[in-house]
Amino acid sequence: MAPDTRTIPGYTIFHKEDYDSAAAAAVTPQGIPHPLDQLSIREIPVAAALLREYASPKQLKFNCITLQEPKKENYAAFKQGKAPRPDRRAFAIVIDRQSGQVAEAVANLTTSKVEEWKEVKDVMPTLTLEDLDIMERLARKDSRVIQACKDIGITDMSKVFIDAWAIGIDERWGFERRLQQGLAYYRNSEFDNQYAHPLDFSVVADTEREEILSVDIRYVNGERTAAPPAEHNYLPQFIGDKYNHDRLKPIDIVQPQGVSFQMKGNELSWAGYKMHIGFNYREGIVISDVRAHDMYQDRERTLFNRISVVEMVVPYGCPEKPHHKKHAFDVGEYGSGFMSNSLKLGCDCKGAIHYLDGVMALASGEAAVVKNAICIHEEDNGLLYKHTDFRDGTVISARDRKLIISQIITAANYDYGFYHIFSLDGTYKLEVKLTGMLNTYSLHSTEQAAPYGTEVASQITAHNHQHIFSLRIDPEVDGQNNTVVQNDAVASEYPVGSPQNFYGNAFYSKKTPLRTSLEGAADYCYETNRTWDIINPNSINPSCNKPVGFKIINTSCPPLLAKPGSVVHTRAAFARKPLWVTPYKDYELFPAGDYVCQSTGEENHPHNQTIWDWSRRNESIENTDIVCYIQFGLTHFPRTEDFPIMPAEPVSVMLRASNFFIKNPGLWVPPSSVCVDTMSTNAFPTSCCAGSKQGDQSRL
Amino acid sequence: MAPDTRTIPGYTIFHKEDYDSAAAAAVTPQGIPHPLDQLSIREIPVAAALLREYASPKQLKFNCITLQEPKKENYAAFKQGKAPRPDRRAFAIVIDRQSGQVAEAVANLTTSKVEEWKEVKDVMPTLTLEDLDIMERLARKDSRVIQACKDIGITDMSKVFIDAWAIGIDERWGFERRLQQGLAYYRNSEFDNQYAHPLDFSVVADTEREEILSVDIRYVNGERTAAPPAEHNYLPQFIGDKYNHDRLKPIDIVQPQGVSFQMKGNELSWAGYKMHIGFNYREGIVISDVRAHDMYQDRERTLFNRISVVEMVVPYGCPEKPHHKKHAFDVGEYGSGFMSNSLKLGCDCKGAIHYLDGVMALASGEAAVVKNAICIHEEDNGLLYKHTDFRDGTVISARDRKLIISQIITAANYDYGFYHIFSLDGTYKLEVKLTGMLNTYSLHSTEQAAPYGTEVASQITAHNHQHIFSLRIDPEVDGQNNTVVQNDAVASEYPVGSPQNFYGNAFYSKKTPLRTSLEGAADYCYETNRTWDIINPNSINPSCNKPVGFKIINTSCPPLLAKPGSVVHTRAAFARKPLWVTPYKDYELFPAGDYVCQSTGEENHPHNQTIWDWSRRNESIENTDIVCYIQFGLTHFPRTEDFPIMPAEPVSVMLRASNFFIKNPGLWVPPSSVCVDTMSTNAFPTSCCAGSKQGDQSRL
Repeated sequence: MAPDTRTIPGYTIFHKEDYDSAAAAAVTPQGIPHPLDQLSIREIPVAAALLREYASPKQLKFNCITLQEPKKENYAAFKQGKAPRPDRRAFAIVIDRQSGQVAEAVANLTTSKVEEWKEVKDVMPTLTLEDLDIMERLARKDSRVIQACKDIGITDMSKVFIDAWAIGIDERWGFERRLQQGLAYYRNSEFDNQYAHPLDFSVVADTEREEILSVDIRYVNGERTAAPPAEHNYLPQFIGDKYNHDRLKPIDIVQPQGVSFQMKGNELSWAGYKMHIGFNYREGIVISDVRAHDMYQDRERTLFNRISVVEMVVPYGCPEKPHHKKHAFDVGEYGSGFMSNSLKLGCDCKGAIHYLDGVMALASGEAAVVKNAICIHEEDNGLLYKHTDFRDGTVISARDRKLIISQIITAANYDYGFYHIFSLDGTYKLEVKLTGMLNTYSLHSTEQAAPYGTEVASQITAHNHQHIFSLRIDPEVDGQNNTVVQNDAVASEYPVGSPQNFYGNAFYSKKTPLRTSLEGAADYCYETNRTWDIINPNSINPSCNKPVGFKIINTSCPPLLAKPGSVVHTRAAFARKPLWVTPYKDYELFPAGDYVCQSTGEENHPHNQTIWDWSRRNESIENTDIVCYIQFGLTHFPRTEDFPIMPAEPVSVMLRASNFFIKNPGLWVPPSSVCVDTMSTNAFPTSCCAGSKQGDQSRL
Repeated sequence: MAPDTRTIPGYTIFHKEDYDSAAAAAVTPQGIPHPLDQLSIREIPVAAALLREYASPKQLKFNCITLQEPKKENYAAFKQGKAPRPDRRAFAIVIDRQSGQVAEAVANLTTSKVEEWKEVKDVMPTLTLEDLDIMERLARKDSRVIQACKDIGITDMSKVFIDAWAIGIDERWGFERRLQQGLAYYRNSEFDNQYAHPLDFSVVADTEREEILSVDIRYVNGERTAAPPAEHNYLPQFIGDKYNHDRLKPIDIVQPQGVSFQMKGNELSWAGYKMHIGFNYREGIVISDVRAHDMYQDRERTLFNRISVVEMVVPYGCPEKPHHKKHAFDVGEYGSGFMSNSLKLGCDCKGAIHYLDGVMALASGEAAVVKNAICIHEEDNGLLYKHTDFRDGTVISARDRKLIISQIITAANYDYGFYHIFSLDGTYKLEVKLTGMLNTYSLHSTEQAAPYGTEVASQITAHNHQHIFSLRIDPEVDGQNNTVVQNDAVASEYPVGSPQNFYGNAFYSKKTPLRTSLEGAADYCYETNRTWDIINPNSINPSCNKPVGFKIINTSCPPLLAKPGSVVHTRAAFARKPLWVTPYKDYELFPAGDYVCQSTGEENHPHNQTIWDWSRRNESIENTDIVCYIQFGLTHFPRTEDFPIMPAEPVSVMLRASNFFIKNPGLWVPPSSVCVDTMSTNAFPTSCCAGSKQGDQSRL
């Protein structure tokens, strides 16, 4: 077996001899796993062994080994006590080390049997960190790369760094090679910021044969472009005396009684909410079985069956080669799980934090753990509600609270924080914070950055780009059968002066149910403040006599700026619409296809269908089990302020209870203050504040 | 003189005999006031006396007495040491108690002279809390109101409550009367929520003559509608045992070394920012002279000359009488200062809070103080930036911090929190949180709420409405002369396959300078992710060779849904556009006119011009001293969750440094963690975290 024991920063790798170690014990769950729990460090090598035995004498490279979640029907039956516990199953994508053939396999860990084995063609699996790791190693030794560096005055190859990216598009090769591209940078010294010294060539490599296929040098008027020489750093060894330690006094966030949530394995309860937290190499965090306790009906009600970020794309807007190849699908091409930060190292949240680990498989079939990949914590969220009665000075206010389940990933230069946020008013929000480093390129002396980039520092351009994320919501709004209704705020059709609208002020919410998956591919409409309600037509809110629902509020959904017919527009069809609604199907998850690397976006690919294909099946999405893919993001024209390291920029999408509860769902929250103004006229009003002691206003 | 010494909840009133009290001393500033400081409790009665003497023998009712800010030119000259300190001046609007004649006056407090006195016709000043207070008092005694109540079974008039509103529109009277309308409610018991029992009549009163002009009863098919009987309460005496005290553990926010900002009088310094905090009866908080220290150029740079919320409108969408009259302009009609909550009573923020008082004049010319009207505090703001270098596991992250200057106002049923937020990345954000009570109305048994309202509880409808706010920004981006450039993200004009855009991915930011105030009336464009840069064409960022700027990001700007030609559309012309840009003129502040009550929106009113008129002057706004009016808000279709008290709903607008600084302006912030992964493969990585002690991750 090939050795795959290179170290990977952030990963803790468990070899066979480590299984009985204290470290292994620390990350091994006790008892029977929940059916949605990620595979453990003990299950992964078992699955690998089953698959290796099955495929023998083939030599397998494991691209992924991950939980095969039970089919929805089976899991539902188990939950209802109508069926036995589903077997534990591992889903794997494997590559035959000799032939390069890709296969999908399912190993039943309960019965120790390989149940499925399917060869798939004309697809390329995710590039793992191990795969990407070859680029720099190979490129530094490649004579063409060495020459390309030498020609611009660089001879110390240890100072040359190559960020490995998925290929994007390169017509010179097809599926006969598993491609990646390398973007080149230089460092003046060990911790120097390489993105201040982009180099003018890029590299293409074959991942499996471990060879450099091409070194593509950009010439401007026949000339090379030297690396921009100036340093632009952000690490302490460079900033040093520019830090101002006096300006900000500490803000300490303290939870003397600990957190308000309880964990039972990976099942979480908080403030009436219940859910399961899963994790896999590709989506990262997966939140399942989200329920809420209804204080008015005193029962548990289902909200969402499954929530995860299933794709994203970052198309760059510079048409010049080689930048046309930059359109990263970070989830599908690299995996949000694989790229997870170990948050122990980051100190990224404040207050009392509970961490969960992420478990993944290496190419060897061994397990690797990203310790503290998932952060669970609470934050104060300001006012939940307040009202002052101006007559008697009665004041009541309560504070909102957030439960935040988050992870941070690093995709070469960029860093993304994903924050799944639940709050007490019946809102789920996904906030993404974009930070890290801009992708940069060198400017030749005859070039200017505009219009396709910004010169963020002398001779360095950062190109225009978009970030479009796909949030997959499998709703279960008070039950499995849901419908999406489109809401448009429109003025009354009746003219000013007519009896029906004499003063011209009439407006209402026009409701359009989306009936088929073709209609479910919806556009945003700013002019009508368009929103969408996921309703349950079978569950009527007795107060308003309308179906119960959750409203999708998605106002940050930039249109895809790549033109129709362009490579990105074709490959990232999901990004053309802010909303797609399809009927639920087991294992239909990834809107840009199961295999995004080197994908072409062709229609009806036998092994790689996309949301475009699913939508065009034109099936009913009315009063049935549906799935919503919600696209949101931003268009980024780099600013000098984004360099050398970007201030975090947030973007979010929200689902909000909308006639789901019969009243404000947060009325169980004890008010933080209830006061009565004594209406003294000659001295300051004395207040009687219940729940908020004098001089201790910071306590709930 | 008529007695105006009724108590007003939240107000502390200072009569002449109180001037030497400890309470008076506590709210009297020491030393020479800053030219932008609000009038003190000692200056207000002095101004009143000067004006009273000037106008004698007229009997004056003071509608407002407020600081007449110095003219920009004079203040600038003073700041530059080129002119003496501007005189302290009071601006007043007064009503002749006999004739009802309105006049504007300026009293120079330095010279003790009345410098201006101008009678203004066909206008009606702001309704003060004292003005609004007459409604309930008069209505309860009015025989028509008593009969209207009796006819639906209500005989105890102490249980009837009348919310006073500006009239909106009522063709039966004109400027011969100073009108207000009253919306009627019922309470079953002392603290019962009256908005659960709306009554089916409304009242019109003459504010000055203190008489009820009309009681307008709504009949449906000739029948009255009884008050909905069910109680829907939110105060502790009703919720009692439904509170769940165990679910949420406390989150304490502690600042052991105190706040990071310094106050010198009303001048604030924080994290390199400097500004002055003012306050008046109408705008509430006024932030002036905003500057930032530039760490790269080591100099102070001007950002904004003045920031305030100058208007808002809440048009309701039900065409049926009397709801066509509901379109509250809360700032102009009632005054954000007048309606301020005393935050001592609300315990509304956490951490270490610094409060400032709001000072206003009563009709008597005496001063009243809203103690703790302004809250200044800091909050942690999550990640400022983070990057992990995947090669060596180097992790750096820093935390962002917010400075928040806030006030909360209560406008009868609604409560609005206004949060002016500065953060370390060079962003100013205005966030408004909407909470309090929905405006409700009773449904007759034959009626349904849809389409113009939601039945939030049995027999209670809450009507569709919008909230549109107007944020006035007087920019001073690196100097006085600025230009607004409109940015549209557009695909390249070159087709896919052309040499200029072969792969079809090209896009750029199309720049259109707004040159005149007509062009400055700009629409939003969702399809192009439209933003606007306030640039200084005379100050070039040396990194990118572009003018320095601040970007207006305003994506929550719902189109006004009232039809053109409707009353609201005409009166609230400001709400038709998300952005208006006009050249700066002293004392041109209020886009719906200086006098909003009973305004008609007519063009070129001699004493009441609006943004529509200013825009149509069609003056240059290029490279000159300009002002931006930014409209934003939301369209609210009430949900059952908004009843009986609304979960706070946030909406915001942002101005962000955009090529203003040559680099990330937050690099002076000491990182909260700097770590290196030691890449141990068989144990969890040990980290060396600088700046974040083990077990104390909650500290900056």
